[in-house]
Amino acid sequence: MTLALYPGSFDPITNGHINIIQRGLNIFDKLVVAVAINVRKTPLFSAQERMDMIREAVGSDRVEVDCFEGLLVDYAIKKQSNVVLRGLRAVSDFEFEFQLAHMNRRLGAENKNGLDTVFMMTGEEHFYVSSSLVREISSFGGNVSGFIPKSVESRLLEKFKNDKN
Amino acid sequence: MTLALYPGSFDPITNGHINIIQRGLNIFDKLVVAVAINVRKTPLFSAQERMDMIREAVGSDRVEVDCFEGLLVDYAIKKQSNVVLRGLRAVSDFEFEFQLAHMNRRLGAENKNGLDTVFMMTGEEHFYVSSSLVREISSFGGNVSGFIPKSVESRLLEKFKNDKN
Amino acid sequence: MTLALYPGSFDPITNGHINIIQRGLNIFDKLVVAVAINVRKTPLFSAQERMDMIREAVGSDRVEVDCFEGLLVDYAIKKQSNVVLRGLRAVSDFEFEFQLAHMNRRLGAENKNGLDTVFMMTGEEHFYVSSSLVREISSFGGNVSGFIPKSVESRLLEKFKNDKN
Amino acid sequence: MTLALYPGSFDPITNGHINIIQRGLNIFDKLVVAVAINVRKTPLFSAQERMDMIREAVGSDRVEVDCFEGLLVDYAIKKQSNVVLRGLRAVSDFEFEFQLAHMNRRLGAENKNGLDTVFMMTGEEHFYVSSSLVREISSFGGNVSGFIPKSVESRLLEKFKNDKN
Amino acid sequence: MTLALYPGSFDPITNGHINIIQRGLNIFDKLVVAVAINVRKTPLFSAQERMDMIREAVGSDRVEVDCFEGLLVDYAIKKQSNVVLRGLRAVSDFEFEFQLAHMNRRLGAENKNGLDTVFMMTGEEHFYVSSSLVREISSFGGNVSGFIPKSVESRLLEKFKNDKN
Amino acid sequence: MTLALYPGSFDPITNGHINIIQRGLNIFDKLVVAVAINVRKTPLFSAQERMDMIREAVGSDRVEVDCFEGLLVDYAIKKQSNVVLRGLRAVSDFEFEFQLAHMNRRLGAENKNGLDTVFMMTGEEHFYVSSSLVREISSFGGNVSGFIPKSVESRLLEKFKNDKN
Repeated sequence: MTLALYPGSFDPITNGHINIIQRGLNIFDKLVVAVAINVRKTPLFSAQERMDMIREAVGSDRVEVDCFEGLLVDYAIKKQSNVVLRGLRAVSDFEFEFQLAHMNRRLGAENKNGLDTVFMMTGEEHFYVSSSLVREISSFGGNVSGFIPKSVESRLLEKFKNDKN
Repeated sequence: MTLALYPGSFDPITNGHINIIQRGLNIFDKLVVAVAINVRKTPLFSAQERMDMIREAVGSDRVEVDCFEGLLVDYAIKKQSNVVLRGLRAVSDFEFEFQLAHMNRRLGAENKNGLDTVFMMTGEEHFYVSSSLVREISSFGGNVSGFIPKSVESRLLEKFKNDKN
Repeated sequence: MTLALYPGSFDPITNGHINIIQRGLNIFDKLVVAVAINVRKTPLFSAQERMDMIREAVGSDRVEVDCFEGLLVDYAIKKQSNVVLRGLRAVSDFEFEFQLAHMNRRLGAENKNGLDTVFMMTGEEHFYVSSSLVREISSFGGNVSGFIPKSVESRLLEKFKNDKN
Repeated sequence: MTLALYPGSFDPITNGHINIIQRGLNIFDKLVVAVAINVRKTPLFSAQERMDMIREAVGSDRVEVDCFEGLLVDYAIKKQSNVVLRGLRAVSDFEFEFQLAHMNRRLGAENKNGLDTVFMMTGEEHFYVSSSLVREISSFGGNVSGFIPKSVESRLLEKFKNDKN
Repeated sequence: MTLALYPGSFDPITNGHINIIQRGLNIFDKLVVAVAINVRKTPLFSAQERMDMIREAVGSDRVEVDCFEGLLVDYAIKKQSNVVLRGLRAVSDFEFEFQLAHMNRRLGAENKNGLDTVFMMTGEEHFYVSSSLVREISSFGGNVSGFIPKSVESRLLEKFKNDKN
Repeated sequence: MTLALYPGSFDPITNGHINIIQRGLNIFDKLVVAVAINVRKTPLFSAQERMDMIREAVGSDRVEVDCFEGLLVDYAIKKQSNVVLRGLRAVSDFEFEFQLAHMNRRLGAENKNGLDTVFMMTGEEHFYVSSSLVREISSFGGNVSGFIPKSVESRLLEKFKNDKN
């Protein structure tokens, strides 16, 4: 059985992420969608909210939704996984992901738990969608319904409505 | 009559921007140079100062200088324009501009006001010039006279002189 | 009135090209779709066939279909146009187009007829479609109906049927 | 059980390819290393030689070595596989692979047999190694022993020795 | 005698930097490793600590370790050097370095002291290593011993140990 | 004394090459401009013509003009040089040069004669100029006088005049 980790900020989850999750399930037996907690950044949604939105959007019993703090290699040991799944959108992504994948492979080797990364190209209908663009457009009252699941949309509306009060 | 928007931070306007404006006027009947106001960033020059500098540098009655806040698609509806003009300098630019152009096209379609983007390559004598590099060099007392119009230069000198007092 | 040239091999025209032509007509008053004849290459379709397919696919009286041999700057003088329209798909495209646009701008200046290039991003549903991929897939009997106009499809089928006899 | 195709020219197989195969076996249950036959190109080694060299270099019963002609989507149907594995080395690779992956996904969908591509980054100790560079260096009598398996080396020496007679 | 400047943040120095310094000494008679002080950023290590770590790691009398504030072109005049050495890792690096190299060449010309930049590709065993990744991994207690000199490792451990008290 | 090799096809030498040679002489004591002979390609100019044109364009006694066949690492041993100089123009260049530089460094190490590559960015006024574009424009009777030395221009005119007879 192959268990892959799909780590990310998911602030919030987009249709691009969901596309990768669905296609990842054709390849892996199980996926752990892992919300990365970064104490140095202030996310729009809390880790709990981000996990809730993923659970609402992805309803497969082959998908586990979790969160982690610290190094991915340490989390991979805890989850007994040796594979990371990542979506690739563009050249800038590619460079950064390239660096991370090599670093994780090296760190994995030193921790005696190999950690390799596989990439899938984000579907062409989603490749210009990012969580940060969704947040920005939504904060200006723009219509982001085409880029995110329904439940994320209502939470975004609420978030920015509260923002204004 | 084709009216194109040329949006940007213009903090401050550089000779590279002026090059794009002049060449854009060969293609479009009218250009609106639109200073983007981003409440989350602290610009060196106020929106008013930035508009003043553009007006001083560009003296064509086919160029309108304006500012806007929020989404470009909403501003485009207000100005009744369907075309955005952008300058391209390098690969990193390209990726980000690619994403924005697709997003704006999609948002434009949803707002029932198509919004398409056309690109021109920044002239080779300007392609390494950016507003942020100009600000940085000027803040260290470097000579930026070759990269910006005269009136911008004196404002930069004043800005950083005041900075030191 | 702004007349833009849209040059290319169009061997054959794809839905990606048609997407650029349609969006170009929102910006320019008239487009000349110009089939480039390159005596050093052996195209699949003759210049006449390529022009016929473009005419069948694009039915606007604001579009002229033509062919040319030699330098684009010379052809631009003949057509009294100062603007070239090009579609951009990806980074490799970008680099080459960047070089060509600068070279044409320089050659145009020396010929005392400015020649500038504007770019539009190929629609995301077409950005992985190229004439060469279409030819290759079709030569192996693959289904390319989603990437090209109907009339091109039947000509491709005929071309490769004849190929086998 | 997940069966992935690993297609390529393998003219000849390099240590970079072997690195991808070994790491692919950590993720997939079985790999078909599929030598692509392209009647329009003249390879250095025949398809048979290329398959022999792969078999000599890779000794796992979870690896099948095969060859195919025509479209990968058709071959995937024959092998009842829905996944393609590809190694990524650099940005130029990325662009082309991006295009191919999207095209294959689309063609796969039309053939009612989904065909998705997953990528792994070529190990950093191999990322500048390509079959074409190996052929070129070897043809000039250069030492390529660090880039290819032993058995490939002796075949290369023989090939270019015969070349000179 | 050719004296080259090797400027950077070196926060902290990595094995990748040391690789460039060693290879730079094969080309230049003398290298000044120049720690850039940026008052707008808060480094992990002070300029003094960064210089100390470089001195501990590089023990050649052909290497001078120094620090500077402000424009590199001004510092180059002070050190009577006309050459900057930079390591290149990836495409993103390339674009930014490209811009900086052209800007420095232009500023150098205006200051009547030519300032040119030469680049070396970071060794493949280091090309995914950056000071910021090292800081991040180390802050999470990850093992970075393979990416930095011994003396840097102990300082990092101490830094993050103090952090927790 | 540092002797650097500047290898290339130089078919023909352009102002971009001359720019790199002149700036290379600020860094290296001596440069060998080395015309690469590739028996598999048919150049426009013979190796002798290419060397003649370089000699006519570059009149420094610190520049030697030569030609070589086979591997650069072997030629470097013969010339007792450990450094290769290359100009970088764009991202596509970068990727290929990156691969070559690493390969040469590795081959150099195996031949027990280190061979490292340093890069300089082609001046912005030349970065879109390439020998192949010059050949193509000239073959169509275009004006290439701004991109090449005078003596190359007359040879190109003659070459294509003879071509037509």
